[in-house]
Amino acid sequence: MKTRNPRIGVILDPWEYSSFIPKHILQKLEEISDDIHFAEASSFQGEDEWKAWLKEIRPEIILTGWMTPSLPEDCLKEIPELNYMCHLVGSVKGTVSDDLIAEGLIVTNWGHSISRTVAECGLMLAIGALRRASFWTLEMHNRAGWKDRKKVETGSLFGRRVGLHGFGAISQELRRLLVPFDCPVSTFSPSVPDALLAEHDVLRADTLEDLFSKNDVIFELAALTPKNRGIVTEELLRMIEHGGAFVNIGRGAVVDEVALAKVAAEGNIQVALDVFGEEPLPADSPFRKLDQVFTLPHLGGPTIDRRQDATLHGIRNIHRYLAGEPMMDQITAEVSKRIS
Amino acid sequence: MKTRNPRIGVILDPWEYSSFIPKHILQKLEEISDDIHFAEASSFQGEDEWKAWLKEIRPEIILTGWMTPSLPEDCLKEIPELNYMCHLVGSVKGTVSDDLIAEGLIVTNWGHSISRTVAECGLMLAIGALRRASFWTLEMHNRAGWKDRKKVETGSLFGRRVGLHGFGAISQELRRLLVPFDCPVSTFSPSVPDALLAEHDVLRADTLEDLFSKNDVIFELAALTPKNRGIVTEELLRMIEHGGAFVNIGRGAVVDEVALAKVAAEGNIQVALDVFGEEPLPADSPFRKLDQVFTLPHLGGPTIDRRQDATLHGIRNIHRYLAGEPMMDQITAEVSKRIS
Repeated sequence: MKTRNPRIGVILDPWEYSSFIPKHILQKLEEISDDIHFAEASSFQGEDEWKAWLKEIRPEIILTGWMTPSLPEDCLKEIPELNYMCHLVGSVKGTVSDDLIAEGLIVTNWGHSISRTVAECGLMLAIGALRRASFWTLEMHNRAGWKDRKKVETGSLFGRRVGLHGFGAISQELRRLLVPFDCPVSTFSPSVPDALLAEHDVLRADTLEDLFSKNDVIFELAALTPKNRGIVTEELLRMIEHGGAFVNIGRGAVVDEVALAKVAAEGNIQVALDVFGEEPLPADSPFRKLDQVFTLPHLGGPTIDRRQDATLHGIRNIHRYLAGEPMMDQITAEVSKRIS
Repeated sequence: MKTRNPRIGVILDPWEYSSFIPKHILQKLEEISDDIHFAEASSFQGEDEWKAWLKEIRPEIILTGWMTPSLPEDCLKEIPELNYMCHLVGSVKGTVSDDLIAEGLIVTNWGHSISRTVAECGLMLAIGALRRASFWTLEMHNRAGWKDRKKVETGSLFGRRVGLHGFGAISQELRRLLVPFDCPVSTFSPSVPDALLAEHDVLRADTLEDLFSKNDVIFELAALTPKNRGIVTEELLRMIEHGGAFVNIGRGAVVDEVALAKVAAEGNIQVALDVFGEEPLPADSPFRKLDQVFTLPHLGGPTIDRRQDATLHGIRNIHRYLAGEPMMDQITAEVSKRIS
């Protein structure tokens, strides 16, 4: 491998280095090249310094993260060696422009490597919502409360009908986690082929109305395309069986959140949310006032201890790049335009 | 079956009837006998009225619940027909004396039929503890908080080493739920045979010290025997790897809770508790003041929608009783004395 020895630039902040590139992961990077150059992402004073570093190092491959400055618009002209941006995290919007991608810069992100941790978060939120975990946390910590056995309301995930809105990588990982719970699982995801659904033992819902009205627990995992914005309406939310739950671990803006707060307040279904249309969640959001709404501040993505999974995914992509093989989770100009 | 047609008495409160004996479960009872008599448990004014009802009905089998009054000490002498108490819930202590069991009354409880819902609760608490669900619920609801990506601390259950203290029915169900998380699982449970551990792909820890020091996530599920009271000491709790978690879904008094509160406050491990040495949890318990301690008011047992599982278990036991087959989860005099 060292015969190729590509020049690699890594531009992260210290807290990103420690979780994304712990020692045993660094060793794997060093097996690819001994010409690796590290920079501290937040240390550059303005674009000139950042561009100067890139022109000095002239990397062929860059590893980028949340704190990496936006790539200069002329970087491919100024540094013709630069060919592949291996983005260790999710959205590339703040780091690279659509124009640079169109000019030929290869870009990948963490893709499906973090899906299982989002699925894990969703499973926890669903079981927690059915048990009223948020209500009890507040009741026990704020009000010194305890249950009244005669009045307690709790539900289980065992045997419940589960509906997945969207059937991408996270839904597929979630399906695996649901196996021991004996849940019949269906999905609304028009573009997914029948064979993939059969492989995962998932039934197809023909419409969103079908999905919401014929299941007890809905996991929201649809991509935020222009068509999907606000597609989960009050009417749909009211179709979920009483005693059921709505869990959003996808994108907040897919849902009519005003309607969701109204439905949640009525208490016929339980609601758990890791994502919101506006993040950080505004201080006056009704979700903060509803004890029964189980909330997290967008923590579904990789936990600190699993960020290394994203780097391992990037390293596998670097091997593919060097071998001239197709990349995983490439952000082409087309993909970038489709997803906001 | 109706040829036998045993006289059955059911003594529950209305809220117990609705969850333990919904319509489709009642039908299964009625397939056993058409000589079933129902009473409202809390309606008896004193033991005389209760005894009078028993003497009037003279049931061979009684179905009992949380609200059923304690059986009169002379009931077997007064009602020689009474032979089997099918207790639909857990502890029989308040409902039947050791003496009555010793005199020959057959007693069973919900036994393993509710184990999977406790395991489900434990899984939720473990994932939630590693994600800091309690902290974030309080932070988002009480203080309008949001994460700082650079400082957030979260962990995943994927690939973590799991230790089970005790390997009864709940641990076995929990093992099933852990399969998709690729966790190496070990247990400290001296009386469990090697074959059972091998069947569940669980390794044996030779000592409690081994269990606590060589795992990341400990599930407390040991029975509360005199020997086990307070057996989880401060020393053991401090052996859990930093970043790990301690989840108690068994019995609170197995743990030195003063030490547990101290260790939890330091924050090196996450703590989730469904059970406490004193329940209801005292208003001034330190656990209520620690935002990071994920607490529930002993909700691990069957959720409302799964209480019917306990009744189905009881019905299977009635079939066994009538067929003269060995009962499941029988509370013999010996069992009753061993477990508090």
